[in-house]
Amino acid sequence: MPKITFQPSGKSIEAPAGTLLLDAAAKAGLLIDTPCGGQGRCGRCLVRVESGEVSHRENPHLSAKQLQEGWVLACVARVAGDLSLNVPPRKEREKVVEERAGTRTATALKYEWPRYPAVRQIYVELTPPTLEDAFTDVDRLQRVLSQEHSIEQLYVELPVLQRLASTLRQSAWKVTLTLDADSRLGEARLIDIQPGKPKGPLLAIALDIGTTNVVMDLVDLRSGRAIERVSERNRQIARGEDVISRIVYSEKGGLGELQHLVVDAINNLVKELSQKHSFDTRQVYQMVVASNTTMTHLFLGMPPKSIREEPYVPTANQFPVLTAAQLGVDINPLASIYNLPAVAAYVGGDITAGVLAACLFNTDRLTLFLDVGTNGEIVLGNKDWMTTCACSAGPAFEGAGVRHGMRATTGAIEEVRISNKTLGPSLHTIGDVPPLGICGSGMITALAEMLVTGVIDRSGHMKTSYVQEVMGDRSRVRKGDHGAEYVLAWAAESGNGQDIVLTEVDINNLIRTKAAIYAGMAVMARNLGINLSDIEEVLIGGAFGQHIDIEEAIQIGLLPDLPWDRFKFLGNTSLWGAYNVLLSKYAREKADEMAGKMTYLELIADNSFMNELMAAMFLPHTDIDQFPTVKAALEKAATR
Amino acid sequence: MPKITFQPSGKSIEAPAGTLLLDAAAKAGLLIDTPCGGQGRCGRCLVRVESGEVSHRENPHLSAKQLQEGWVLACVARVAGDLSLNVPPRKEREKVVEERAGTRTATALKYEWPRYPAVRQIYVELTPPTLEDAFTDVDRLQRVLSQEHSIEQLYVELPVLQRLASTLRQSAWKVTLTLDADSRLGEARLIDIQPGKPKGPLLAIALDIGTTNVVMDLVDLRSGRAIERVSERNRQIARGEDVISRIVYSEKGGLGELQHLVVDAINNLVKELSQKHSFDTRQVYQMVVASNTTMTHLFLGMPPKSIREEPYVPTANQFPVLTAAQLGVDINPLASIYNLPAVAAYVGGDITAGVLAACLFNTDRLTLFLDVGTNGEIVLGNKDWMTTCACSAGPAFEGAGVRHGMRATTGAIEEVRISNKTLGPSLHTIGDVPPLGICGSGMITALAEMLVTGVIDRSGHMKTSYVQEVMGDRSRVRKGDHGAEYVLAWAAESGNGQDIVLTEVDINNLIRTKAAIYAGMAVMARNLGINLSDIEEVLIGGAFGQHIDIEEAIQIGLLPDLPWDRFKFLGNTSLWGAYNVLLSKYAREKADEMAGKMTYLELIADNSFMNELMAAMFLPHTDIDQFPTVKAALEKAATR
Repeated sequence: MPKITFQPSGKSIEAPAGTLLLDAAAKAGLLIDTPCGGQGRCGRCLVRVESGEVSHRENPHLSAKQLQEGWVLACVARVAGDLSLNVPPRKEREKVVEERAGTRTATALKYEWPRYPAVRQIYVELTPPTLEDAFTDVDRLQRVLSQEHSIEQLYVELPVLQRLASTLRQSAWKVTLTLDADSRLGEARLIDIQPGKPKGPLLAIALDIGTTNVVMDLVDLRSGRAIERVSERNRQIARGEDVISRIVYSEKGGLGELQHLVVDAINNLVKELSQKHSFDTRQVYQMVVASNTTMTHLFLGMPPKSIREEPYVPTANQFPVLTAAQLGVDINPLASIYNLPAVAAYVGGDITAGVLAACLFNTDRLTLFLDVGTNGEIVLGNKDWMTTCACSAGPAFEGAGVRHGMRATTGAIEEVRISNKTLGPSLHTIGDVPPLGICGSGMITALAEMLVTGVIDRSGHMKTSYVQEVMGDRSRVRKGDHGAEYVLAWAAESGNGQDIVLTEVDINNLIRTKAAIYAGMAVMARNLGINLSDIEEVLIGGAFGQHIDIEEAIQIGLLPDLPWDRFKFLGNTSLWGAYNVLLSKYAREKADEMAGKMTYLELIADNSFMNELMAAMFLPHTDIDQFPTVKAALEKAATR
Repeated sequence: MPKITFQPSGKSIEAPAGTLLLDAAAKAGLLIDTPCGGQGRCGRCLVRVESGEVSHRENPHLSAKQLQEGWVLACVARVAGDLSLNVPPRKEREKVVEERAGTRTATALKYEWPRYPAVRQIYVELTPPTLEDAFTDVDRLQRVLSQEHSIEQLYVELPVLQRLASTLRQSAWKVTLTLDADSRLGEARLIDIQPGKPKGPLLAIALDIGTTNVVMDLVDLRSGRAIERVSERNRQIARGEDVISRIVYSEKGGLGELQHLVVDAINNLVKELSQKHSFDTRQVYQMVVASNTTMTHLFLGMPPKSIREEPYVPTANQFPVLTAAQLGVDINPLASIYNLPAVAAYVGGDITAGVLAACLFNTDRLTLFLDVGTNGEIVLGNKDWMTTCACSAGPAFEGAGVRHGMRATTGAIEEVRISNKTLGPSLHTIGDVPPLGICGSGMITALAEMLVTGVIDRSGHMKTSYVQEVMGDRSRVRKGDHGAEYVLAWAAESGNGQDIVLTEVDINNLIRTKAAIYAGMAVMARNLGINLSDIEEVLIGGAFGQHIDIEEAIQIGLLPDLPWDRFKFLGNTSLWGAYNVLLSKYAREKADEMAGKMTYLELIADNSFMNELMAAMFLPHTDIDQFPTVKAALEKAATR
């Protein structure tokens, strides 16, 4: 009979081949938590094989590296011979689980654009004028730029013109010119002139104005390096959490205020960076912005009213290149601000940036780009064609319309595991503090766990009698003020002294949300005459996207049932796109080209959308054959 | 013996053939003033032949129309048979003299540019958007402009973008667009949008910023009509009368103030026009400005310091097209302001405008264009080539550096006649009031009269003993604080209770001034290998130019000795040029082309300039053979 030694205690037992490691450990007096009830779902029962053999080593939840290091799940791996097993303390196991979750973190975006920033600094030495060579100061600059840098069309901005004569003379005709090509005023717009040679970094800013957060990268155009990323809340949140409520607020005379709020947030971040890195805000010479169409309208002071009214027509999809002075942004007043072009009312410059970041222009593979936020924006295509649509998913994943929903901040439940044996939950909160509520990723895992463990049925209804049967007096399913609800945390366990629950109404909202996104994909695929299973790569952008667990997102029918290796999380693709546009005119040209090239599909105008939406209002879907792995899992669960 | 009847008295006398009409009138008891002493110079002794014949009827001072009406000068015309002569009252004679002076007023400029203003209004009716046709508002505008007006590149200015959505919807998609092509931002910059069809005139402004006066034409671009001309002092005068003193003031920290002063003057004129013609200043959609290089620098807030320091290099000769908002000009903030390009530090956009007005680009004839102001700017050429130079003439003709010099306002002596018999002066003042001083045109006549009557010699020195011999105790030539001086008006006759004099120092300044201008022409002609006498047409622009008497200007050697019919006065060529640029892009293109084409001759860098200047420091010139008619007149005077 194989001998199993447990480390670090050194305790040994004997157990027959085929014994679950979990059971072997119990025999040795080591109780390992199995929050999912031992289904191999949650990964909390990790142990490390130091020597010897186990069967069922393979597990889709473990990375190749983790497998190589010897990690196995004690609830599924079985004894195959003599073994030395390390059962690390809980903390260490958690770390490995985190690492496992690391497969969800952003895939480094690798496309290298040829460096060609719109803003550059050129050092020139001019010959001083004489009676025989009495060119004007501007013509003298133009001459040297033409001769030495092939720049034929210099446009000198008025404020520079006003100090040109003195700067040239005080610096002995040796100056550094800051030139901007990011404008239609000529190939080189002179926006600054300084005595002597260039000093320090050449600063610019890539900006992502999200409905929720404003995120900013400080970039050195000379080295191409992103120096630091800072972010803060979009201060407009005080006037409405989603784009629709902000549009409504703007219609009530709040447009100017909303513009000021976002500009204030931007200026505050610029100030933070300037203090931290000791630069004058006037040294920031360019800004590239990616944002959704409503955010861009508010930033530019354009009323977004028509965006929310049929036929959903924005004032513009391409925006003029403006100066910082025009928008009140506190960088160099002559710096250009370029807003990435939008495609439609609900497919904004953030998606154009995302498509750029996802390199859709560069792939032969049929690729789905998905940005899940308040809306789910979808782009399907490859380098030859792209179709896009917006699913008005609603803000349920962002916490709105869910009783104890909250944003992904400290105290939010981000992971739920339910034991198939006890039907009791294990929670993981952000910051490892007692729970205050549940955020989007938590909702997805909760929904998936409840489905797989039979707490709810496929229509999202609580299986009250089954749960009471299993749990008895302390049943987590009960009748609340608004129908049946599942208690995630009792008041005594929570951080605010209240029971934290997920209600049938919440579940219905979540199903509606995931259904909208899936229906969008389905309608788009049908329009293009393809099957979702034909999709070769799924690229997920957006801040929320990063925290989705693919297996569970498939289980609830949010994502199509494709092999996991076809999914990639890209992180903040909006900001990444803006950063690339800052660094390369080729990236910008590509972004402009793609925005113009994307075919927009208006779901509301599509007759099949309602049918697809209704069909998707099940878990994972009315037609479960579209989700073969989920079908198998449910069947397996039912037989237990 | 011929019988001469005088009207309106009806008195008759007899006089032999050959009797001067002046003497015949005296015989009848009619005393006619002859301020010039009866030399046919001043024209004050006009009488009208009602019937009969006189000899010596021709007189270069009389226009063809006046000759036809029977006007003759009584001091030169002689009895040739029976005559009926009308001797009108003094007032009526003055009127005819004024009319005679009318030969000096502006020749109507006739060149007709094809009308093609940069600003136009287009009325469009858009089809409202639907789900099937969900173009953005901007794309919808672009589409109709492309389809109906072949405008492919619309650029919507931010403030228009901000009210585009609401204006379109509130006006049932029927709007008037105000488009400006006067920019490098694309072929059509949308600067205003209004509901419904175009209403009223399409206003724009042509502006001449002179060192002394700011003159403005309000123009209706739709009809091409100049609605009204208004002017006021350039308020910068309070900080220096000429460009050099303003440059000096600007160097002492006064640049901002000088810019504000001229902008204030402009805004005041716009306000005056808007009140008079009941329009909102925001309805003025364009401004074209002609001014000298220093004025342009001050208007744009560019320090003009380097203009007055060798090698006299301005910041720029071509100026960016700016908006009214950038310069603080109170018209539509998005209106473009185009400053005509300069050629050099002392040959500004006013001269470019002048050359445009003088149609040098359209003539085969060797033409001299002359703008006499504080500087004398000269352009010599034809449609194939043009050379220009600036003579730093100094402000003597504008009253500075002349003891009792003043500007051409009420009380200024604008005409002086000296009797060759009594050597006493007759004065004509602006406004017909007692004299307060003498203005530029007065100085020219005074100098010419003093020379021809022998009060001064050709070097400008008073012939004191000769004058005392003729005038006795009441001699008008005396020794003053600063050498010899001629009393133009005794204290009792003047408007300020002081003797008004012209001193030898004054005369020396005036000679230096006229010498600088003549030397400029001479050097330029020599550089080009031509004689001044080859010049086929002399076109004189500028406000002061209008008041020059050609005969006398030749007598003092300011203008070359050419037949009078080669001279034409064009009036305010600077404003006329700006007006044409406003009305036609072709005029503007031509102006830009000519500014680039003019070869600038820097007189200070020319070795022969000093020699020419010294040679011209005589009246009319050291080499009197360059002035054959003056030589003849002086010889004739000497024989009397």
